Amino acid sequence: MTRIYASRRVYEGRVLSLRVDEIDKPRGEGRRTVEIVEHSGGAAIVAMPTPGEIVLVRQYREAVGQALWELPAGMIEAGEDPALTAARELEEETGYTAKRLRFLRSLYPTPGYCMERVHLFAAEELSPGEQRQEDIEDIEVRVWPLEKAWALVESDQLRDAKTQIGLSWAMMMR
Amino acid sequence: MTRIYASRRVYEGRVLSLRVDEIDKPRGEGRRTVEIVEHSGGAAIVAMPTPGEIVLVRQYREAVGQALWELPAGMIEAGEDPALTAARELEEETGYTAKRLRFLRSLYPTPGYCMERVHLFAAEELSPGEQRQEDIEDIEVRVWPLEKAWALVESDQLRDAKTQIGLSWAMMMR
Repeated sequence: MTRIYASRRVYEGRVLSLRVDEIDKPRGEGRRTVEIVEHSGGAAIVAMPTPGEIVLVRQYREAVGQALWELPAGMIEAGEDPALTAARELEEETGYTAKRLRFLRSLYPTPGYCMERVHLFAAEELSPGEQRQEDIEDIEVRVWPLEKAWALVESDQLRDAKTQIGLSWAMMMR
Repeated sequence: MTRIYASRRVYEGRVLSLRVDEIDKPRGEGRRTVEIVEHSGGAAIVAMPTPGEIVLVRQYREAVGQALWELPAGMIEAGEDPALTAARELEEETGYTAKRLRFLRSLYPTPGYCMERVHLFAAEELSPGEQRQEDIEDIEVRVWPLEKAWALVESDQLRDAKTQIGLSWAMMMR
């Protein structure tokens, strides 16, 4: 546990907020500041219509200046059970609904400066349906052969971290 | 490519900066804002003293309120070759030096709101040495049996994303 001497809220936003805390140095004398991005967390879904296939979505990501193939995923709304986030985002982004969402594990994408925790689920017994997008989204859906998606990871062409983790889980389950 | 109508710099910091851009909605009329965390990127290292062992470091992470086991890693300094970042951080955090750093792949931890790209390397032909820490660091080093570290991932006790990715790479290489 760290003693916090001062905490300055720099920004409150839609997806994230930023605060700067003044804390003790871990060793020796004196204090230091840490920048902490606040985020409500997310849920990401490994959805496999057949054992050798996985559903990925593609959208343009401003922060990295390119369109990326990713697991279906979304932000947890205040107080929401991550499994409900997963069910909602799966259906909105891909049209698929699942009989069960099985928790696999969670991940901290960048614990050095952001509190976000992503809850990873496997969607079981999928049924296809209609995608329902918000107007701030433009999402392409594709069912990929798992091996082909994994080849993109290995050749540094699929870089989203949660997606690498979901794909490696699927590869190791074969 | 997105047209940016306005860009407001909210914060300039040590590890990260934050800007808020006003851009077109991807579909339909109107504009929206996106929050973008700027970050210089990082390098992370899979260092295996023997084929069944991996070097991990543990430090307290303010953003998530707990100490985490992670791959040795650090931030890229302006203009630095990521392989040099990897070599420096490996030596500073663990004492190990490597004959070669082999690029494996890269990852975007949170492309929805942050530009950070982490370059993942395998450290080859390791020699042990003395850890050299800065006074803002308090890092514990341990050589883990790979299988034991992987069991922590599977039981949701090792959550750092880059580390899950490095460990899965090592597990799939066996």
